[in-house]
Amino acid sequence: LKVLNCEYGKNTIKFLRLHREGKKHFVKEVEVCTHLRLTSAHEYLDGNNSLVIPTDTIKNIVLVLAKKNGIPTLEQFAIDICKHFMTTFCQVAYVKTYVQEVPWQRLHENGVPHIHSFICVPDGIRFCEAEQCRNGPLVVFAGIKDLKLMKTTQSGFEGFYKNEHTTLPERHDRILCGELFCKWSYGECKDFDFDCIWNKIRECILEAFSGPPDCGEYSPSYQKTVNSIQMLVLSKVSQVIETVLNNTFYNVVDMKNLGLTNDKEVSKCSKHNLPRLFRNTQP
Amino acid sequence: LKVLNCEYGKNTIKFLRLHREGKKHFVKEVEVCTHLRLTSAHEYLDGNNSLVIPTDTIKNIVLVLAKKNGIPTLEQFAIDICKHFMTTFCQVAYVKTYVQEVPWQRLHENGVPHIHSFICVPDGIRFCEAEQCRNGPLVVFAGIKDLKLMKTTQSGFEGFYKNEHTTLPERHDRILCGELFCKWSYGECKDFDFDCIWNKIRECILEAFSGPPDCGEYSPSYQKTVNSIQMLVLSKVSQVIETVLNNTFYNVVDMKNLGLTNDKEVSKCSKHNLPRLFRNTQP
Amino acid sequence: LKVLNCEYGKNTIKFLRLHREGKKHFVKEVEVCTHLRLTSAHEYLDGNNSLVIPTDTIKNIVLVLAKKNGIPTLEQFAIDICKHFMTTFCQVAYVKTYVQEVPWQRLHENGVPHIHSFICVPDGIRFCEAEQCRNGPLVVFAGIKDLKLMKTTQSGFEGFYKNEHTTLPERHDRILCGELFCKWSYGECKDFDFDCIWNKIRECILEAFSGPPDCGEYSPSYQKTVNSIQMLVLSKVSQVIETVLNNTFYNVVDMKNLGLTNDKEVSKCSKHNLPRLFRNTQP
Amino acid sequence: LKVLNCEYGKNTIKFLRLHREGKKHFVKEVEVCTHLRLTSAHEYLDGNNSLVIPTDTIKNIVLVLAKKNGIPTLEQFAIDICKHFMTTFCQVAYVKTYVQEVPWQRLHENGVPHIHSFICVPDGIRFCEAEQCRNGPLVVFAGIKDLKLMKTTQSGFEGFYKNEHTTLPERHDRILCGELFCKWSYGECKDFDFDCIWNKIRECILEAFSGPPDCGEYSPSYQKTVNSIQMLVLSKVSQVIETVLNNTFYNVVDMKNLGLTNDKEVSKCSKHNLPRLFRNTQP
Repeated sequence: LKVLNCEYGKNTIKFLRLHREGKKHFVKEVEVCTHLRLTSAHEYLDGNNSLVIPTDTIKNIVLVLAKKNGIPTLEQFAIDICKHFMTTFCQVAYVKTYVQEVPWQRLHENGVPHIHSFICVPDGIRFCEAEQCRNGPLVVFAGIKDLKLMKTTQSGFEGFYKNEHTTLPERHDRILCGELFCKWSYGECKDFDFDCIWNKIRECILEAFSGPPDCGEYSPSYQKTVNSIQMLVLSKVSQVIETVLNNTFYNVVDMKNLGLTNDKEVSKCSKHNLPRLFRNTQP
Repeated sequence: LKVLNCEYGKNTIKFLRLHREGKKHFVKEVEVCTHLRLTSAHEYLDGNNSLVIPTDTIKNIVLVLAKKNGIPTLEQFAIDICKHFMTTFCQVAYVKTYVQEVPWQRLHENGVPHIHSFICVPDGIRFCEAEQCRNGPLVVFAGIKDLKLMKTTQSGFEGFYKNEHTTLPERHDRILCGELFCKWSYGECKDFDFDCIWNKIRECILEAFSGPPDCGEYSPSYQKTVNSIQMLVLSKVSQVIETVLNNTFYNVVDMKNLGLTNDKEVSKCSKHNLPRLFRNTQP
Repeated sequence: LKVLNCEYGKNTIKFLRLHREGKKHFVKEVEVCTHLRLTSAHEYLDGNNSLVIPTDTIKNIVLVLAKKNGIPTLEQFAIDICKHFMTTFCQVAYVKTYVQEVPWQRLHENGVPHIHSFICVPDGIRFCEAEQCRNGPLVVFAGIKDLKLMKTTQSGFEGFYKNEHTTLPERHDRILCGELFCKWSYGECKDFDFDCIWNKIRECILEAFSGPPDCGEYSPSYQKTVNSIQMLVLSKVSQVIETVLNNTFYNVVDMKNLGLTNDKEVSKCSKHNLPRLFRNTQP
Repeated sequence: LKVLNCEYGKNTIKFLRLHREGKKHFVKEVEVCTHLRLTSAHEYLDGNNSLVIPTDTIKNIVLVLAKKNGIPTLEQFAIDICKHFMTTFCQVAYVKTYVQEVPWQRLHENGVPHIHSFICVPDGIRFCEAEQCRNGPLVVFAGIKDLKLMKTTQSGFEGFYKNEHTTLPERHDRILCGELFCKWSYGECKDFDFDCIWNKIRECILEAFSGPPDCGEYSPSYQKTVNSIQMLVLSKVSQVIETVLNNTFYNVVDMKNLGLTNDKEVSKCSKHNLPRLFRNTQP
């Protein structure tokens, strides 16, 4: 008898972990999802729940681990969760954990860091995943999402394929703008400095997108820029899983019939959000 | 040299197709996404765009097909799009199309259908996908999403696994509520009556969730209910790809310290939306 | 010393009220907001909280009233809440309550109503407000929002004012589509049949928007249609507070350069959501 | 004959204004809404559109003004728009304009500002409004919204009013967290340095919320903190229109039944978004 989806779990276990060093406070607010697959599927077939770990218990375990271990890095926390489920429950065949950070930053007043006040600055969200099959390796992924970037020149799109359905004009100077999602793999879990690597990769992405600060670098297409980003990220980690630059088009407003020449000074954007169900798949 | 993600395309081509029969109007508003992979990847590696079909052209083609063929069913329209790209462009190695419907329904006044007025009724969104690799079969998927269902009794969760992290009480009478996502496959594209099957599957889902109208049917767990839904859907099509009942918990409000006995009359829901990046994977 | 905003309260007290008649279940899920202003403002000026009713207590009271009285109608429930605060707390100078319904509808299987299963059908959200100043009347408002309507003909816009910034062509046959928000006043709280009136007003709105089912009625502008809606609503209640038809424009896609004549068969919509902070004000 | 709402306009005119100084680029992306009321209401009553300025023309005018004048400050741009409508169209009785900024910031690489690359950093959104009645003064408002702040100590709530519905415990050390909205008036339009004042007010708000960086300042209630913010803002401008700290509650997770003592290290937040239709009103 075939059993279909038998993965289940708890989504969006959202909490704040406060760490104090004397009067100085440190916060990490995270959203955690933990999914399991069990070795048997009696709960699906027979309604026998005897091996089912309730999602409420999953939530409790995540909170207990945060309390006991803290959240040294998102990745280490995801690893801790996976290890706990594999070690504690022999009925778990597979565990996957996703951790996403709420981007709190320490507040500064005239350059002085505040000991317990924070501001939310969502300029790219950090996340990670860890997963493990019983008897398999624990694999760790990390990434950045919702990072919105724009360059107002040094971008074009020319020499593309044309036929009777082509109406796009060639352009050698356009605005390039998009929301970046990038996910990479650390492969099997070793002793990485996850914070350091993540920060370096974020810098790589900004650099690959924008080029040198004094002149930029010409992008002949979205595709080429995505590949430049991927190549630079690959120089830091073993594998890039997915890179999407969900582009926002800016069209120069035609003002001829309003009696004006618009030298790319006024553009309208047409934002199209990527629908939930339709993501890139691997080649 | 490894090339990573080389799928690209146009997301959210949103338009309305109006069809007239005399004075009677019929509308179909859809959001279409069409993605491609090309046989080579020069645009990623060298910035050579000569084989790239611009996303603007992809959009034009989708609109032209809607104009020429209409949208007899969502699925047929997705098939038309895939076939067009495979037939027209020899540089296309893979094509995938997603089509989602805006749920317009004909307005009725005192039971009389209006000839040209419509109301939006989002009680479950219909979508489909079609995909094809060069020299491979054209495969069609369909589904329903954002279908919110609730039963206020005939649901429990007992006899589950317990350890020191368990705080959930056993319950044999609780509210079961969730947002359903279900996607199935028609396998290789044949001559299906897509509208008829979709409507039957929707009925199956409602039936499997709620049981007979006069008494309902006891659900011993989310898992069992999800499986019942899947089994009933499987009786209509060859394969169920994914079923998620993204559950919303309702907790009976404890009113003891307010001097009242709450016989499950007042409940609070804790809604946790499934994050974008974390979906079930296949067993 | 001037005290500025001194209104406070609890937003989004969301809960489900279950009512049972034998084996038949009835549900009302609502979101309630209750705001207060106190007779003094010591808590703002001096940090003296002695008269402050905590928002947690406000939430408890709303839940207790739902438990004790049920929710006969949204409006009666809002009235009950306002009366409770005015009667119980002499420090309350002003109370306002907003109640919004989650649109659960009883599920039907082959026309048979289910005794305890429901489906969410958001085709226009019902809400109400009640407010009272100490020694003033209790005033009740109600409304509908997020009601999306479309007519595919019998709408135009001609003979408007023109100058050098006009580029809009005149049109006598266009699509009219919008999301309706309408709020009215019952004046001082009397013995209204709130459910009956609300349903009649919803019908009025649909009728005023779409005209007779067999032919429709020509709309020469959004403005005229909004006014027709208002006039018909006014025939049922003493006062219309606000009517907004947040229109969605559909532009016929120009397919000339694609070699096709598009007889209004394919249109693209440009949806612009009303921003939160910018609502109509009264004349 | 009474005419009800007769305000209309164009919402969300979203565009990017690019300004170049040699190779250095400056961007301002804004969303503009402009509403009008006309001196007569024939379009509502009779469907006579002869004085109606189409919303499409309104959009054109906003774009033309951006092209001609640039956007020196948001406020000056809103003033320009209002003045244009009052001066050009004698049928306009009232004009209101809202302008909101997309928070692009110049990208920096190793501290070096990039000449044409930008990153979106939404840590508080700047907006403004201008409005004018014919023969009345042009009044200018500005504000900040979506500014999320948190302090992890130096906040409590004690000594509040208690009765049989009170279950909230007194707390002298809790987390204070909220999303701030603050809107002020510049009164009649004079020669203000809008950028400078806005930045100073933002600093005031952060300061009033968090207190000195080395020790903070005790907040005895949300109310007192809101008032402190208002008082400090008032020291810079003539009038504060509205201040809302839409608070997010963090509750310390009770871990006793999990065998642990939680010294405020793990908290769960319960976020309740302010519904659209229910905003504070003025005392």
